[in-house]
Amino acid sequence: MDDVDIEDHRERIDRTQLWNELAAQLAVDSIRSTTEAGSGHPTSSLSAAHLTAVLFADHLRTDLHDPRSPANDRFVLSKGHAAPLLYAALKAVGAIDDETLLSLRRFGSPIQGHPAPGPALPWVEVATGSLGQGPAIGLGMALAMRLDESAGRVWVLIGDSESAEGSVWEAMEAAAHHRISALTCVLDLNRLGQRGPTMHGWDADVFVRRAEAFGWHALSIDGHDVAAIDAAYRAATEDDRPTMIVARTEKGHGVSEVADRDGWHGKAFPPELAERAIRELGGLRSITITPPKPEPWMPAGARAPAGAPAPAYTEPIATRKAFGETLRWLAGERDGLVVLDGEVGNSTYTEDFETVAPERFFQMYIAEQTMIGAQTGMQALGKTAFAATFGAFLTRAYDQIRMSAIGRADLRLCGSHAGVSIGEDGPSQMALEDIAALRAIHGATVLYPADGNATVRLVAAMADLRDISYVRTTREATPAIYAPEEGFPIGGSKTLRPGNDVALVAAGITLHESLIAADRLAADGIAARVLDCYSVKPIDGDALRAAAAETGLVVVIEDHRIEGGLGDAVLDALASEGTVTGRVVKLAVHDMPGSGSPEELRAWAGIDADAIVATVRTALVRG
Amino acid sequence: MDDVDIEDHRERIDRTQLWNELAAQLAVDSIRSTTEAGSGHPTSSLSAAHLTAVLFADHLRTDLHDPRSPANDRFVLSKGHAAPLLYAALKAVGAIDDETLLSLRRFGSPIQGHPAPGPALPWVEVATGSLGQGPAIGLGMALAMRLDESAGRVWVLIGDSESAEGSVWEAMEAAAHHRISALTCVLDLNRLGQRGPTMHGWDADVFVRRAEAFGWHALSIDGHDVAAIDAAYRAATEDDRPTMIVARTEKGHGVSEVADRDGWHGKAFPPELAERAIRELGGLRSITITPPKPEPWMPAGARAPAGAPAPAYTEPIATRKAFGETLRWLAGERDGLVVLDGEVGNSTYTEDFETVAPERFFQMYIAEQTMIGAQTGMQALGKTAFAATFGAFLTRAYDQIRMSAIGRADLRLCGSHAGVSIGEDGPSQMALEDIAALRAIHGATVLYPADGNATVRLVAAMADLRDISYVRTTREATPAIYAPEEGFPIGGSKTLRPGNDVALVAAGITLHESLIAADRLAADGIAARVLDCYSVKPIDGDALRAAAAETGLVVVIEDHRIEGGLGDAVLDALASEGTVTGRVVKLAVHDMPGSGSPEELRAWAGIDADAIVATVRTALVRG
Repeated sequence: MDDVDIEDHRERIDRTQLWNELAAQLAVDSIRSTTEAGSGHPTSSLSAAHLTAVLFADHLRTDLHDPRSPANDRFVLSKGHAAPLLYAALKAVGAIDDETLLSLRRFGSPIQGHPAPGPALPWVEVATGSLGQGPAIGLGMALAMRLDESAGRVWVLIGDSESAEGSVWEAMEAAAHHRISALTCVLDLNRLGQRGPTMHGWDADVFVRRAEAFGWHALSIDGHDVAAIDAAYRAATEDDRPTMIVARTEKGHGVSEVADRDGWHGKAFPPELAERAIRELGGLRSITITPPKPEPWMPAGARAPAGAPAPAYTEPIATRKAFGETLRWLAGERDGLVVLDGEVGNSTYTEDFETVAPERFFQMYIAEQTMIGAQTGMQALGKTAFAATFGAFLTRAYDQIRMSAIGRADLRLCGSHAGVSIGEDGPSQMALEDIAALRAIHGATVLYPADGNATVRLVAAMADLRDISYVRTTREATPAIYAPEEGFPIGGSKTLRPGNDVALVAAGITLHESLIAADRLAADGIAARVLDCYSVKPIDGDALRAAAAETGLVVVIEDHRIEGGLGDAVLDALASEGTVTGRVVKLAVHDMPGSGSPEELRAWAGIDADAIVATVRTALVRG
Repeated sequence: MDDVDIEDHRERIDRTQLWNELAAQLAVDSIRSTTEAGSGHPTSSLSAAHLTAVLFADHLRTDLHDPRSPANDRFVLSKGHAAPLLYAALKAVGAIDDETLLSLRRFGSPIQGHPAPGPALPWVEVATGSLGQGPAIGLGMALAMRLDESAGRVWVLIGDSESAEGSVWEAMEAAAHHRISALTCVLDLNRLGQRGPTMHGWDADVFVRRAEAFGWHALSIDGHDVAAIDAAYRAATEDDRPTMIVARTEKGHGVSEVADRDGWHGKAFPPELAERAIRELGGLRSITITPPKPEPWMPAGARAPAGAPAPAYTEPIATRKAFGETLRWLAGERDGLVVLDGEVGNSTYTEDFETVAPERFFQMYIAEQTMIGAQTGMQALGKTAFAATFGAFLTRAYDQIRMSAIGRADLRLCGSHAGVSIGEDGPSQMALEDIAALRAIHGATVLYPADGNATVRLVAAMADLRDISYVRTTREATPAIYAPEEGFPIGGSKTLRPGNDVALVAAGITLHESLIAADRLAADGIAARVLDCYSVKPIDGDALRAAAAETGLVVVIEDHRIEGGLGDAVLDALASEGTVTGRVVKLAVHDMPGSGSPEELRAWAGIDADAIVATVRTALVRG
């Protein structure tokens, strides 16, 4: 050996020692925090301690003082129940202190049972804990990095149990299709799930074969051999495909009383066992490591806004088309705007954006979970991300949307083809539960414009909204009822007809039915006030309470199921400040629709002008 | 050649002619029905015409007069937009007539834009049209057949675009794991999606490699070569693994003006084009085929019910545990009861059922979409199927639940770990949107028992309910408040405390907080009525309206988001028969929870006894 080799050899021995020591520390700290909490997942943390130690010490290039920098590598803990391991690693890099570590799972602690971002935890950018969602999030981060010309990489730690989720494989397919090389998934193959052995045990080859079949570079290693881990991470960075590292590990590794034993999932060690375990792992350590530095990165100069006029409509247009045209306009106004499509861009009209900004348009194919997961990853890296599909098919990603709300993600969603008004395609394509589902999401804004000009203003407003926002669009063309310069504040409403005999409250397609009904009622001498509740959440409580007080009869009409939609939102607003004044009648979809024309189906559902007129007449006679 | 060979050769020529003629008829009829409707998906039908013709003529063993027989093979059109092809095939076997065929997509027609079961269409057992759901449904059917010792087989026709859905791959993994040989997926590789080329074009090898990596027998063929199709179907029946047949096809095959051309997805041919297309396909035909007969099948003799006593509780027990013990009891009472688990059986306590009826317990691992899809398939074959996971993770299968409602499926769902009351694990594991989501499902029953005895009665009632039913269970033990013999009618409620000063309306965990609050209010001389709304949908409107009328103040307390849950259900009930009497105050979860103890989190959310007492005092002072 010459000098250089000896040096290299010594350094490698040093590094190996450090990695092993650090892994032991992460294991010990995972045990300490969970035993202190009295609950949690120490064994699921121990299996990945070596994988995480080598990653944080030598591969995850991060500026801890600038955790949101696009230059940083990203780590996504897809197996979110191994949160104690993540917190132990954050302690090892000096991001959190030991006191915080030992506050695990306590009320008010920034370090929860499963990772969730918060002001005191800027190194965690997304929420995990519902399994199988990390790969799509990582894909989105990698796509954003490519767009930003950052040299960053994304490392996703996944469990073997969660690999049963189809969301893992659809994200892998999308990553291969998009030729993402900066994404590495590390599969912690610890053989044991929550309630016994996993489907494939320690058969690493199964996962290697599948990853390869999905277009990935794949290799398998001993997940407790730090040199092998280091080599695998290097190999991942050198391949031009996304890489899957299948790491055979032991659940509870290093603690002989629990290692590779069933029955220890999600259980903190009792204090005596914790003591023995820590002794077996070599006791407490206080290693602090400095993660490797990210590659220098310069933000590209922002382009000047195109300054083109916003779309404006005087003729009938489908709000879904106005949505697409608004995105096309916004493409010239905002550099950071990206759009994701679920292979229906010619129906939602995101294709209008694609035409002018193809590099910021991401085709996620028929894979809604990946679409929302990737969107979550992209917004974590600062993108203003819109995603669109049929409203009915957003239900496919409801769990992802729920998790993104926990992660304080800014998702801008569009669901097209609302309600029975889509007509002939039938119920599988009709969004009828979307408002109920989205209203229940924490912090969500739910918008439902009735014409093209309202759509332009509301979609433009969404670009500036935080948290989840949702715009519901209509398949068929609707007449322009607003002037292009009309403003549409979030939480507002529009009174389109005055009147104190009855208030017709609607949004989207049923607003047009309400206007027709109001005209017909006027001919009978019944003055119907018409309210456009384009902002379903937050809703304009003041206008609704005034309408109820001044008319004594509120009829809510919506192309949605009777539960959880506009009608329930109106009732909630009316009840929120004391006694409900007057009567409220809800017209909505009660039964299961079939095919038919939009007009036939609205008549069948009892949400068309005829039904409104009949309801008002009956109610006024009864009242 | 000897005689037999000549005979065989002739027969094969005859058969080949028949298949090709039949395929042409299916293509022609798909064009006729969609052109008549003015919308629909003729080109997606044409690509699979040969695949379907050979299947219906010689492989799909069906007794058309007994379409629900467990002996029958099953056909699931996962690519539901090719519905015209299915209807054309049903016409060819004599199940529907030409008049019905030409009623496609019309209001009131049994043959909708996408397949949905109905009284006039008993040959369609499940709804499809939200993509990627067929394989899991097929898996469930095949599992039911195996349980029934039927020799039936399941054939699932899937599209290439929908293969981007992770649900396809998770179902494939489960099918291989469960060693299902009676399931064949035929992939119509027509290269074109809704808005352009699919991800993999005509690369059949990609799908073959993946299917093999997922443990399937796989082969690729020319999807317009009827002899190759026939051979592939035979090969599928001879293998002991599930089989994927990747069939390279042309979208719009046989019509030169549209074949393999982009821009023709979901478009009916204009009449002149339809005429030319039908001419090119050889004109109208009226072939009627008799499908092959199913193998004889004898139902196994029903075992006598065990007659064991139902579980009964006097001590505190978690309702999730009572759920599991009820299933264990029902296992002895009902032969056809099956239970599906999403790898959390030791949390939901479906493991109690597994212990006594392992052959009727199906481990679907962490794959909720497959769990619900398979459940849908099993109930289609007559099983009384329960599926359980954390309520939070049922959101992962919300689209599948939505589609099952369209398919009039009887799904019995349990969501455990309701609300912030789970404590330390944090929001990713908390069901907080589940009631909103499930209430919005057509025909769903939503139940939320507060103690063990109520759970026993309600879960037993679910076994007899049609459509979707959902029981929400609690992680922590709750005291027994009901006697074991107490009845719990669906749509009912229980008044646990009389009182006319205020009505506390709750369900599940918050009922216990309400009882504590009522006792404390009583000490102040405030008589609080306490209502247990264990039946959230349908809800006991009469009791609620009486409570509102008699007290003038209703406080609804729920461990769920403020939107779409019990509070909205109560408001709806109060408004449904005229003016809302009195005030309604809703206590529910408004903000994003973190970790903490159940008690801390209920206090934080303002849904514990303290919050109830404070709310009532404030309201009564204000009132």
